[in-house]
Amino acid sequence: MIAIIPAKDRLPLVTERIVDTYAEIGGTVHLGRCPMPTYNTVVSIIEDLKSVLFPGYRRRDSLRLSNLIYHVGNLVDTLYDRLTQQVARALIYGATGHQTDNPQQRHDWEAAAQAKTLDFLERLSDLRKELSLDAEAAHKGDPSCRSLDEVIYCYPGFEAVIVYRLAHLLHEMEIPLIPRMMTEWAHNKTGIDIHPGAKIGKHFFINHGTGVVIGETCEIGDWVKVYQGVTLGALSAATDVEGNSLRGAKRHPTVEDRVVLYANAAVLGGQTVIGHDSVIGSNVWITSSIAPHTIVSLERPKLRMRTSQAHDFAMDWSI
Amino acid sequence: MIAIIPAKDRLPLVTERIVDTYAEIGGTVHLGRCPMPTYNTVVSIIEDLKSVLFPGYRRRDSLRLSNLIYHVGNLVDTLYDRLTQQVARALIYGATGHQTDNPQQRHDWEAAAQAKTLDFLERLSDLRKELSLDAEAAHKGDPSCRSLDEVIYCYPGFEAVIVYRLAHLLHEMEIPLIPRMMTEWAHNKTGIDIHPGAKIGKHFFINHGTGVVIGETCEIGDWVKVYQGVTLGALSAATDVEGNSLRGAKRHPTVEDRVVLYANAAVLGGQTVIGHDSVIGSNVWITSSIAPHTIVSLERPKLRMRTSQAHDFAMDWSI
Amino acid sequence: MIAIIPAKDRLPLVTERIVDTYAEIGGTVHLGRCPMPTYNTVVSIIEDLKSVLFPGYRRRDSLRLSNLIYHVGNLVDTLYDRLTQQVARALIYGATGHQTDNPQQRHDWEAAAQAKTLDFLERLSDLRKELSLDAEAAHKGDPSCRSLDEVIYCYPGFEAVIVYRLAHLLHEMEIPLIPRMMTEWAHNKTGIDIHPGAKIGKHFFINHGTGVVIGETCEIGDWVKVYQGVTLGALSAATDVEGNSLRGAKRHPTVEDRVVLYANAAVLGGQTVIGHDSVIGSNVWITSSIAPHTIVSLERPKLRMRTSQAHDFAMDWSI
Repeated sequence: MIAIIPAKDRLPLVTERIVDTYAEIGGTVHLGRCPMPTYNTVVSIIEDLKSVLFPGYRRRDSLRLSNLIYHVGNLVDTLYDRLTQQVARALIYGATGHQTDNPQQRHDWEAAAQAKTLDFLERLSDLRKELSLDAEAAHKGDPSCRSLDEVIYCYPGFEAVIVYRLAHLLHEMEIPLIPRMMTEWAHNKTGIDIHPGAKIGKHFFINHGTGVVIGETCEIGDWVKVYQGVTLGALSAATDVEGNSLRGAKRHPTVEDRVVLYANAAVLGGQTVIGHDSVIGSNVWITSSIAPHTIVSLERPKLRMRTSQAHDFAMDWSI
Repeated sequence: MIAIIPAKDRLPLVTERIVDTYAEIGGTVHLGRCPMPTYNTVVSIIEDLKSVLFPGYRRRDSLRLSNLIYHVGNLVDTLYDRLTQQVARALIYGATGHQTDNPQQRHDWEAAAQAKTLDFLERLSDLRKELSLDAEAAHKGDPSCRSLDEVIYCYPGFEAVIVYRLAHLLHEMEIPLIPRMMTEWAHNKTGIDIHPGAKIGKHFFINHGTGVVIGETCEIGDWVKVYQGVTLGALSAATDVEGNSLRGAKRHPTVEDRVVLYANAAVLGGQTVIGHDSVIGSNVWITSSIAPHTIVSLERPKLRMRTSQAHDFAMDWSI
Repeated sequence: MIAIIPAKDRLPLVTERIVDTYAEIGGTVHLGRCPMPTYNTVVSIIEDLKSVLFPGYRRRDSLRLSNLIYHVGNLVDTLYDRLTQQVARALIYGATGHQTDNPQQRHDWEAAAQAKTLDFLERLSDLRKELSLDAEAAHKGDPSCRSLDEVIYCYPGFEAVIVYRLAHLLHEMEIPLIPRMMTEWAHNKTGIDIHPGAKIGKHFFINHGTGVVIGETCEIGDWVKVYQGVTLGALSAATDVEGNSLRGAKRHPTVEDRVVLYANAAVLGGQTVIGHDSVIGSNVWITSSIAPHTIVSLERPKLRMRTSQAHDFAMDWSI
């Protein structure tokens, strides 16, 4: 006779087997190591930074010049504390990969985090100027745009650029992990994936933007306009022809000033340069350089009469 | 000897410099002007409208015909109040760009907002019928779809169409900003970006949908089916050849009845008409009109034997 | 003289007309039927499953081997209860489409739900091993990736694969609706739409991923790498040439081992096989089989000098 074990009594065994795999499979459990930056805290930091950069849009109705300084001062104060903590975690994680119990080491990392955080906050006023040029580019570049407020309020392309420029500053300060967490948060919200390492000039505008990918070693000039689905990517995977790792090498293209890239254009390769004032058409695929002032487009597609006798929506597609 | 200022003592200066830029850079701060529509309130209004249109799916388990009228009546009541407030804000914002302290003017805008909100709510019953045709098109048009419930419950293409049709009604009533906020919220959730100004016929189905862009002046017939990544966009930017602004001009294509647009097809230009019963293939790029009953496809791609001796996943891609 | 009815007094009529349409339009109201699975509960189940699979990454900082078993044991316990309830709802919904008041029937469905839930939880330890191979493929396949932690922490492609593999298990157990709710949640977050019915081999990596669509009857080998915007889709809609429904038929392609699919490539059709070790270039459109070791790419695009005298960003695009 077989004894049937009630389902709930088998759960401890389920737990045990799962816990066993934590030891078996390296690198997929985050235990007893240094605490990594906390995702939710990083998200709240981004939201507060956006309130500092563009006050009065999303969060509070009643801001006036008279109460603004208290509002911003308070935000800057709490941002300093939270960002310092997260940066310290990222620095320790990046340097050691695990927790340090040495109080002197811990103190040094915290001092470094404080200095980097202050440096970052001091750059926000310049960043505001830079972002106002991006907002202007969006307003000028989209005929369906009614006002600058509309850009700041609801353009996903602008939101992705705000987060990218914040993340890029942190990336330049060599803070690990947090910049990528920030741009992946923006990717999640907007469908636009800009690596924090990319270098992007002034007056940058991404219209619609879903599916845009801008790789780590891209260099983009001024007044560049990018439509949804555009890829500025790499040509090859992890190694070059001699088997050397490509981590760190220039793998992504250069796009010069005043280039427009239309929907789903893919420009690939670290040696590829799109010359200034060029226009890259929809669905084009480019792996070598393009001279300035060039228009690039697909050949015209093939046309055929449709012969199938489809009766309604349930048409068949028999090419 | 250099006096070191402790980091936290430098924060007031950071705040001051940021606040200074608010005055320097025009148009990027929303202060002392009329309160704009509140993003979170607009989102809660969309969610409540969805509960009115398709009760019992996401929010409440225990709806029955006997308690339904109270549930919907309550939703309609609170929707009226919140939507009226948001519409009044949008109307004042759109007309003046700043707050009005004139009580008579304020009263007039609020009366206009009440009338428009009531008009909008009165159209919901017709909208429900229209949306049931869209749900039917999704069910018929996708062989992997098991039931109408699945469409209403989890099809992002259907969600984007619900929000578009709501936003389009408000757009037709010439309410500023709120329609665009609504469709950008849907864009954020679904990756589908439909401008509230587009005109879309009955039985419309967007399958998968990520990356779809449908521009402001598109006109789309009945039984049209659109796949992920399709762009119905504009050919040129802010001015025509004579330098006139294109704001308001027809810049986006017309798509006639029973057209299917496959993944990543880009159809551009205000003069471009896709004739009825046509099929536009994946990754095609079209900037001029297509006759009815036409199948459009890319030329076959180039095939080559792969000669690189890649050993594993780290293959190189050397075309 | 016309009596003006105050706006608010017209709201009950608005409600009444909407409620009337609930009876008129079949299939778009979920009333007095069995409660469907609850969206928010399903989402919380996914989040808890992710904490079991990859503990310590997002949710809790202070996990150590000593307290881990309590943490996971507690999660498994509450997962069992909540998942059993949701699975029971899905089974009743799938079998009957409406609520059952027969206590014996209800008891049978609940017993079935308990058995399936336990079976599912027992498979999690194997799933963890499978997912660690996917994480490894991401780390190896992306030169900009710094560590395995970064993959688990913030790669949307990895998140979509986690949810797909969970949903696929439930799909194989023939649990209705919940698998699709899960993958549509991931679609919403990541822009990656993988049908739970697809069969995907080991070491699978989706890079960037926005716009990827993988259809219900796809079969994908090992070490396959997919970039953003790739479609593995169907060629035709609801019926074959003889008018038979295609629900259940193989409508989506087969992709063999070690294939790379670059951005926006569209591979369509149930008879289409991409042979092993092939590379499919960006924006290519394929509807027939490709031999092993083939490189497929678009013909080079058309280049023209740009003649328009655009003065600034407001360039016109007149091809």
